[in-house]
Amino acid sequence: LDYQHVQVPFEITLWIMLASLAKIGFHLYNKLPSVVPESCLLIFVGLIMGGIIYGLNDKSPPVMDSDIFFLYLLPPIVLDAGYFMPSRPFFENIGTILLYAVVGTIWNVFGIGFSLYGICQVKAFRLQDVSLLHNLLFGSLIAAVDPVAVLAVFEEIHVNEKLHILVFGESLLNDAVTVVLYKLFRSFCEMPTIKSVDVFAGVGKFFVVGLGGVLVGLTFGMTAAFTTRFTKDIRVIEPLFVFLYSYLSYLTAEMFHLSGIVAIIACAMGMKRYVEANISLKSHTTVKYFMKMWSSVSDTLIFIFLGVSTIGENHEWNWPYICFTVIFCLVWRALGVLVLTFFVNRFHVNTITGKDQFIIAYGGLRGAICFSLVFLLPDFRRKKLFIAATTVVILFTVFVQGMTIRPLVDLLAVKRKRESAPTVGEQIHIRFLDHLLAGIEDISGHWGQYYWKDKLEYFNSKYLQKILLREYDQPKSSIVLLYEKLERKHAIELAEAGQLGHTPSHPSLLNSDRTVVTDKKLEDTLNLDVLENIQEILARNLYRIRRTGPAYNRHTLPGETEPGEHAKEILILRHRSL
Amino acid sequence: LDYQHVQVPFEITLWIMLASLAKIGFHLYNKLPSVVPESCLLIFVGLIMGGIIYGLNDKSPPVMDSDIFFLYLLPPIVLDAGYFMPSRPFFENIGTILLYAVVGTIWNVFGIGFSLYGICQVKAFRLQDVSLLHNLLFGSLIAAVDPVAVLAVFEEIHVNEKLHILVFGESLLNDAVTVVLYKLFRSFCEMPTIKSVDVFAGVGKFFVVGLGGVLVGLTFGMTAAFTTRFTKDIRVIEPLFVFLYSYLSYLTAEMFHLSGIVAIIACAMGMKRYVEANISLKSHTTVKYFMKMWSSVSDTLIFIFLGVSTIGENHEWNWPYICFTVIFCLVWRALGVLVLTFFVNRFHVNTITGKDQFIIAYGGLRGAICFSLVFLLPDFRRKKLFIAATTVVILFTVFVQGMTIRPLVDLLAVKRKRESAPTVGEQIHIRFLDHLLAGIEDISGHWGQYYWKDKLEYFNSKYLQKILLREYDQPKSSIVLLYEKLERKHAIELAEAGQLGHTPSHPSLLNSDRTVVTDKKLEDTLNLDVLENIQEILARNLYRIRRTGPAYNRHTLPGETEPGEHAKEILILRHRSL
Repeated sequence: LDYQHVQVPFEITLWIMLASLAKIGFHLYNKLPSVVPESCLLIFVGLIMGGIIYGLNDKSPPVMDSDIFFLYLLPPIVLDAGYFMPSRPFFENIGTILLYAVVGTIWNVFGIGFSLYGICQVKAFRLQDVSLLHNLLFGSLIAAVDPVAVLAVFEEIHVNEKLHILVFGESLLNDAVTVVLYKLFRSFCEMPTIKSVDVFAGVGKFFVVGLGGVLVGLTFGMTAAFTTRFTKDIRVIEPLFVFLYSYLSYLTAEMFHLSGIVAIIACAMGMKRYVEANISLKSHTTVKYFMKMWSSVSDTLIFIFLGVSTIGENHEWNWPYICFTVIFCLVWRALGVLVLTFFVNRFHVNTITGKDQFIIAYGGLRGAICFSLVFLLPDFRRKKLFIAATTVVILFTVFVQGMTIRPLVDLLAVKRKRESAPTVGEQIHIRFLDHLLAGIEDISGHWGQYYWKDKLEYFNSKYLQKILLREYDQPKSSIVLLYEKLERKHAIELAEAGQLGHTPSHPSLLNSDRTVVTDKKLEDTLNLDVLENIQEILARNLYRIRRTGPAYNRHTLPGETEPGEHAKEILILRHRSL
Repeated sequence: LDYQHVQVPFEITLWIMLASLAKIGFHLYNKLPSVVPESCLLIFVGLIMGGIIYGLNDKSPPVMDSDIFFLYLLPPIVLDAGYFMPSRPFFENIGTILLYAVVGTIWNVFGIGFSLYGICQVKAFRLQDVSLLHNLLFGSLIAAVDPVAVLAVFEEIHVNEKLHILVFGESLLNDAVTVVLYKLFRSFCEMPTIKSVDVFAGVGKFFVVGLGGVLVGLTFGMTAAFTTRFTKDIRVIEPLFVFLYSYLSYLTAEMFHLSGIVAIIACAMGMKRYVEANISLKSHTTVKYFMKMWSSVSDTLIFIFLGVSTIGENHEWNWPYICFTVIFCLVWRALGVLVLTFFVNRFHVNTITGKDQFIIAYGGLRGAICFSLVFLLPDFRRKKLFIAATTVVILFTVFVQGMTIRPLVDLLAVKRKRESAPTVGEQIHIRFLDHLLAGIEDISGHWGQYYWKDKLEYFNSKYLQKILLREYDQPKSSIVLLYEKLERKHAIELAEAGQLGHTPSHPSLLNSDRTVVTDKKLEDTLNLDVLENIQEILARNLYRIRRTGPAYNRHTLPGETEPGEHAKEILILRHRSL
């Protein structure tokens, strides 16, 4: 037995296998996932596993490695999120999202930090040694809403598109703020004195981290699109480039201390439309499928690891501090949403309702990012307290908020996502209105979102498409593409229902000649079902030939009832397939 | 800049990117791959890269890590080979393949080992210190034909199926022999004295390693098939199980010192038919695509690494030894093939021709497996000589034999692979003959391959399918499945040609009403092509409604020419699509 040799890949494979089997297990019992979010179940599995490891070894199970989390588990989820991001609602609400992500996060960080510092002054709690800076550092890591946790819960409750994109967009874009504030406070903790220059440098860094991430992402995204122009003869490696370039954008951004999450989202959103046009249909299926698969496994692993890492002796249970952390997280987020939405609603016609505000505030789940950041803290006396507080906040938000948000959405009758895709008519209208509004904005001299969108579209069709698309000479409008897609889907459905070009089988042909096969041996293996299948196919085709035959003979007049019947059958088929 | 932090994933991603870009580069110039096999080009790229690294650092570039090769690069290629292995020719020729793989490899090992020992006795060459055991050890690693190299060359020359499976099957199954002999001689080298017990134990081990690999592989394969029964509600992780279980089978086999290659092939071949029936069509596309993609990248990386590792100062250039190694490799393989084929042909009606024998002998390419094994040798005085000889043999076989085999195949007019897939009629006949032969074998009491195949089929349909397939109550024969596949393909083609259920568009409707759109802005973006596309679609559908309309009205008699025209058009469409 040579376990050492294969240990690393063997254990990784086993972990992924465990995650996949856990996912299958939950879905076997259909009732469970409709009550409890999957994330809760997975954390629960992790807690049990951690308990077993703790019980067997009598020492704390290994905590989730922050490097593994940030380098291997997080990117697939963010890539998936960016690639399937609905770009229209995202850009329509980009102002609001940025306001929540930037101002909202800063508000939360300082709110939570200062109020916890206030709590530390109460002598009865014995927390006087926790300085303001440490509280702010803790605030910076606990304030950020987690995209993985938000996605896991919001994908299941199907709220309306705008509400979804507001919460989810915020959770993605606040990464830039979190990175800057976390690193700033951490470096302040290690400095002897803090000058005002450092504070201003921090504010400047903020733009560098965010915009730098966007720039890195777009650069890699455009390169990816350009590369897929040349893969015509070697379709099989096309999907690879989507993954390679987006991962490189993430790593490059992390290398330069920029926001990797922002970079990978910019990369995915930037390359999507060009890559989709360049690569083959099968490659695209593979890309989509594999992205979903990968992010799903990452997501599962993260929650299981979260559960495992919770068990053990890394915690200092100072309950006043922990409880106040949970309360402040809730209160400051609620206040922040209220205040920011007040300003947002003053400038928008399509306002955010009170119910929506409640769900935005309530949907501020914390997750594995906080957890990894708290373990990355430099060692100091109260680190274990911060770990305990973070763990409780995560478990509270994921379990309590995650499990109650669905009933609350039902109770408040929050507007849900529309089930059906927009019709072609609606799409034409939306497009027409876009052009109209762009024209109005142009005439009135107001540089609004439609104006910029129109300019970007122009730049895209004039320059970018020529460079990045393989077959630029035949551009197709999205409506034509949609129609083609629907037709293809329809064709496959028809073929699978066995109705492609065939009329229903004739019973007279179906039940004849079965006595031909008398050989015992043949009948055993080519059993009755198979024979019936073959005969059905033959019957259909024979029927077909019989039908189309006489019409081709110019000496035979077609029977009077036949054409009517034929057309009727086609119509029935059409009806059935629609 | 924080490079340390992201170094590992960043460098891996860059290597894969380099491999993919190299592949694209070769395919941009269509003439190059038709003359030189891709493997040669990739080794060449590796040589250049190695030269650059050597020139810049002034020290040998890093050699390919044997662990990385055996744990990460080899499994995807073998999995791909096993999954797409044509099982019919494989099992039809399993006896011949095993003879070549087992007896042939042993023949080569001892032939090369003993003759090289003879060369070492020549005083002028100054090789007297190389013992017989070391020569046999070297023989055991240099004798094995490499599946990666064989696949890379034989995939491009399209010889007939039997010839392909003989060479390729041998290269895969000889792994068990190589593992046993290599480990046996290596342990003998470290033992003070060798008892005859050890030699017999070695022979016994041989069956354990091979059959154990098959057993491990089949166990994991069946488990994989069983697992995919339960993935109906969570389609997105289905492809994962194919990869996870086959990788686990490889790692488990390696862990117990069994043949990992044999295990992964048994796993892939065992699970294929059940997994295919259980998982969705899109999952299956993803599995196939990703497998091809992965093996293609692994293959590329292996050849590039081979090139890089060749450069440097790891070599001892004793030319007599090296030249005789190349000669003996060629001679012993040719002799082995001749002798073994003589016996094979005595027992078979469908004999292996002289031309085929030549290609089998000539197609014995060596590759990365030898290379990794020679680096895994324990350090001793002449290791660098062995490394040099192995490098030269690999480069000779890949470059000289790999580049000349295509012209030779053309020159000898070796029977090629048939281009078209077998028709349904042929398939029915093949199946009928199988049953007939199984019956004849049963009656005559001869337990031949048809008898066993029939028994296996019976066992499969009686027990295995019930356990492993999700929808056992509706078993479909392969002919019905083929028909469904063809219909689906046909439907997609029809849809893509815009002919699904539509008759050709009416010119009268097509060119009307274009003047309605007068708005300059709209015309700019919704340009003429788009408008034409939309109008074409509308025209088709309108035409359709117009045609089927009157026939549905029972007060209107259908026009006399219309049904004939309709049927004719359908026939034309049918003709065009076939």
